[in-house]
Parts: sequence; C-alpha cells; structure tokens
Amino acid sequence: MDIQKQELLYEGKAKKVYKTTDPDLYWVEYKDDATAFDGKKKGTIMNKGILNNKISTHFFNLLESKGIPTHLVKQVNDREQIVKAAKIIMVEVVVRNIAAGSLSKRIGLPEGTMLPRTVLEFYYKDDALGDPLINEYHIYALNLATPEQVQTISSIALQVNDILREYLKDKKIDLIDFKLEFGIHKGEVILADEISPDTCRFWDVETKEKLDKDRFRRDLGNVEEAYREVLRRLTGESI
Amino acid sequence: MDIQKQELLYEGKAKKVYKTTDPDLYWVEYKDDATAFDGKKKGTIMNKGILNNKISTHFFNLLESKGIPTHLVKQVNDREQIVKAAKIIMVEVVVRNIAAGSLSKRIGLPEGTMLPRTVLEFYYKDDALGDPLINEYHIYALNLATPEQVQTISSIALQVNDILREYLKDKKIDLIDFKLEFGIHKGEVILADEISPDTCRFWDVETKEKLDKDRFRRDLGNVEEAYREVLRRLTGESI
Ligand SMILES: Nc1ncnc2c1ncn2[C@@H]1O[C@H](COP(=O)(O)OP(=O)(O)O)[C@@H](O)[C@H]1O
Ligand SMILES: Nc1ncnc2c1ncn2[C@@H]1O[C@H](COP(=O)(O)OP(=O)(O)O)[C@@H](O)[C@H]1O
Ligand SMILES: [Mg+2]
Ligand SMILES: [Mg+2]
Repeated sequence: MDIQKQELLYEGKAKKVYKTTDPDLYWVEYKDDATAFDGKKKGTIMNKGILNNKISTHFFNLLESKGIPTHLVKQVNDREQIVKAAKIIMVEVVVRNIAAGSLSKRIGLPEGTMLPRTVLEFYYKDDALGDPLINEYHIYALNLATPEQVQTISSIALQVNDILREYLKDKKIDLIDFKLEFGIHKGEVILADEISPDTCRFWDVETKEKLDKDRFRRDLGNVEEAYREVLRRLTGESI
Repeated sequence: MDIQKQELLYEGKAKKVYKTTDPDLYWVEYKDDATAFDGKKKGTIMNKGILNNKISTHFFNLLESKGIPTHLVKQVNDREQIVKAAKIIMVEVVVRNIAAGSLSKRIGLPEGTMLPRTVLEFYYKDDALGDPLINEYHIYALNLATPEQVQTISSIALQVNDILREYLKDKKIDLIDFKLEFGIHKGEVILADEISPDTCRFWDVETKEKLDKDRFRRDLGNVEEAYREVLRRLTGESI
C-alpha cells in the first residue's frame, strides 16, 4: 500500500489529524504542545510528540496482540502514525485503580488510596463544558452512544486495564488511572486516540515517583525526563 | 401507641430529627429555613415548614397507597411527622424528565428541553464536597450502598416518577425533576426524607411558571405563594 498524507482534517491539543489517499485511513502527527486544566495551562514538552508516538504505538501493538480492536495501522516515522479513520464517540472513558486527581477531589479519597474495585467513569468530550463527568443516562439523552456501544467500550476499557496493569508491573510501573477514546470504523467500535503519559498516571512501583503529565500539571520538573523514562522502560529505547 | 418526642438527634438545613420513646421511630420537625448553593445562600420562607410537612405527607401517603415502602408513619401536627427511624443511604437520587438546573449546565441542554428518556443521577450526600455527581463505581468504592441496594433505589425512584408525574398532570403541574433519599429500616430499603417544592421542580403546565425552590434560588419573588399554590392544588387546603 502506498498511502500519501493529504490535507489537515483537524488539529487537537496534542495531535494533528490528516486525511490520506485512502478514505479509510488517517495520518496522525503528534505535537510537543502540552495543555492542562481545560486548556487554561499551556506549554511545550520537548520531544513529547516523538515520545508519545512511540509509547502509544507500543501500547496499541501490545493491545492488538491481545485481541483488542484498535485504530493503529502503523507508525510511519518519529512523530507520525497511520490509523483507521474513525467517527470518535464523544465520551472519554476513564479507568481508575488508585485514587488520584479529580477523583480524589470529587469523592474525598486521598491520592494514593487503593480502590477496593476498579472505577470506570464517563466524561463528555466537550471542551466548552469542561469535559464534565456524565453517566449512562446522560449518554443516551445526548445520543452520544447506544447502550450496546456503552457495553462494548466498558468491557474493552476493563480488558485494557487488565492487560496494561500486568504488563506495566513488569516494568516497575503502577498504572494508577488512564483515559481512553473510542471510535466507530466500518460499523465496529475500536480503540482510538492514544495511550501515553499524557493520558495515564504512571507511578514508579518503588519510589511512587510520577512518570506522567502530572509533572507538567503540578510543575514538578523533569517532565521530558519522565516521558523518556517511560519509553525506556517499555522498549529499552533512549531518544 | 403513645409516642413521645425526646432529645434532638440531628438538625439539618430544613428539618430537625428527634428520638422518640420508640427506638424504631423518629420525630421530624420541618423548619422555615431555606438554603441554596451548598448553603452559601441562606434565608427564610414564611410557613415553609408547615407547607412542606403537609405537601410531603400528602405525597408519601399517595406513594404508600401505590405500594412504595416509605418512612412515613403519620403527621402529628402542622410542622411535625412521625417517621420510621432509618440509617440514611448517603446517596441522593435525582430523577429528571426535563432538563433544568445543574443538568443544563453540565451537559449543555437548555432548560426546558424534554429529555428523550428519563435521566437518573446519583449524588454523594456530602456537604463538604458540595454533593458531587457520582456513579455506581464511586458508590461501591465509598461503600455507600451495595449493588442490590442501588438496584432497589433506582427501581423505586423510577416508580415514584411514574406515580408523581401522572398524579401531578391532573393538578396541572409538570414534574421537571426531583431528589429522593433512601434509608435502611429493619434491613429494608425505604423512601425517607421529604418530597416538597424544596426537593422538586414543579412547573405550571400552561404558563410554565415555577412553583418550587427555584423562586428562592433565583430571587423570582412570591416564594411562599408558590409553595401555598402547590398545597392548594394537591389538597385544596389554603393555610
Ligand atoms: N482513529 C481516529 N480517527 C479519527 N479521529 C481520531 C482518531 N484517533 C483520535 N482522533 C481524534 O483526533 C483529535 C486530535 O487529538 P488530540 O490532539 O489528542 O485532541 P484533543 O484536543 O481533543 O485532546 C481528537 O479529537 C481525537 O479524538
Ligand atoms: N426516616 C429518617 N430516618 C433518619 N434520618 C432521616 C429520615 N428522613 C430524613 N432523615 C435525615 O434527616 C436529616 C435532616 O433533614 P434535612 O434538614 O433535609 O437535612 P439536609 O441538611 O441534609 O438537607 C437529613 O440528614 C436526612 O437525610
Ligand atoms: Mg487528546
Ligand atoms: Mg434536606
């Protein structure tokens, strides 16, 4: 196949999505831009685009190998991937193993509290509304997904959690929580978007050091180093 | 039975709860105090305690007659009821037929939008956290209720909606939304707390005039009159 990158389709906060010569495929470019708190905090993390492209490609390959349907076709270069063109379901699915961030604020469980059961949350992907927490009834009222699709994305999200948790334990990383996005491609629900230190909380198993975007959100320093460390632990690669 | 009111057990924003000579029963006194926005707005609605006691007693009698298990034993005077002593489940259950208030803000549906399906929501009853929206996973993580109890309160809440909606239509009132609280009494889940213009949105079917606490929240005037009008439509009584 000889896919060519064509015009920009849309630009998000972390990636640009281009059309290609194949209407079923998109071309994704990972940027170094970093945002937090509904875009109120803005910055750059050097080489983030390269690191997240490699990290996300690695996770998606792992998940595909375990039978999870994903959008990944292939990584084309340092910053770019070819993915299946999807109609994104405007629901962000968050899976949590340990309390942190907005969950700790919402329900008053101190950061680091082990959750007795995995927590699944849905957020309405709408920047203007601040990506609010929603429930299944809201999803149906807004027509964001069908009950069958909610069932599918919930089940895939929990499977992804099991796969990543076990995999990361070997890499001495605790998977605290993460956010997934799903899309519809040729009528099928597939895992889309990215899995990276931008969209997960990773803590070192021993030191509990944060290896994720919280270093940027909370001005903890060594942001790029943390992303590099994640890639190094996953693939051995140092960029 | 000769029940006597004993010491104050606790005082909430709208009611005082007393022990009685029967350990299975509490004595509830309805106050005129009105609060809104997590207690940040405070005021008094003249005769609210009397009106809400009568209105809530009326609704609870109606629900009991339709087979809903409730805490109501009997109204004892203008401001007071005897109820079954319950261990309150710290989850507020909100049922919505038409978008309004926090739902409109959260998901961006203009107030007055008919919801395609009834929306059910759970809020963590915790003033310090601002009564946040939660989902079933949060309920289990916080050990607020069991899956069986969540099933029961959801089912009762939807039945209450059906009963009240139909009943109120005859009174020329649209039931926009309402909040319920449940408790455990002798191992059984029962409907507790109150159903009143403090805890429901009631709109006149024709004029869409608000006959509820939004008149207080939004400084619309004629607050007491609206509560009186609800009682008048329910029972014919003018106090
Ligand atoms: N396979 C895909 N097909 C179509 N769109 C996708 C796919 N994967 C991700 N996207 C979308 O690409 C956009 C750009 O990504 P990103 O910069 O992370 O956006 P955001 O600012 O919403 O976080 C997002 O809207 C995301 O949902
Ligand atoms: N049957 C019952 N048994 C025990 N407590 C009850 C019962 N019904 C209501 N309550 C509780 O009485 C308290 C006082 O009511 P209220 O003034 O409305 O409180 P709040 O400030 O929490 O709204 C509340 O905590 C409510 O949950
Ligand atoms: Mg994104
Ligand atoms: Mg109350």
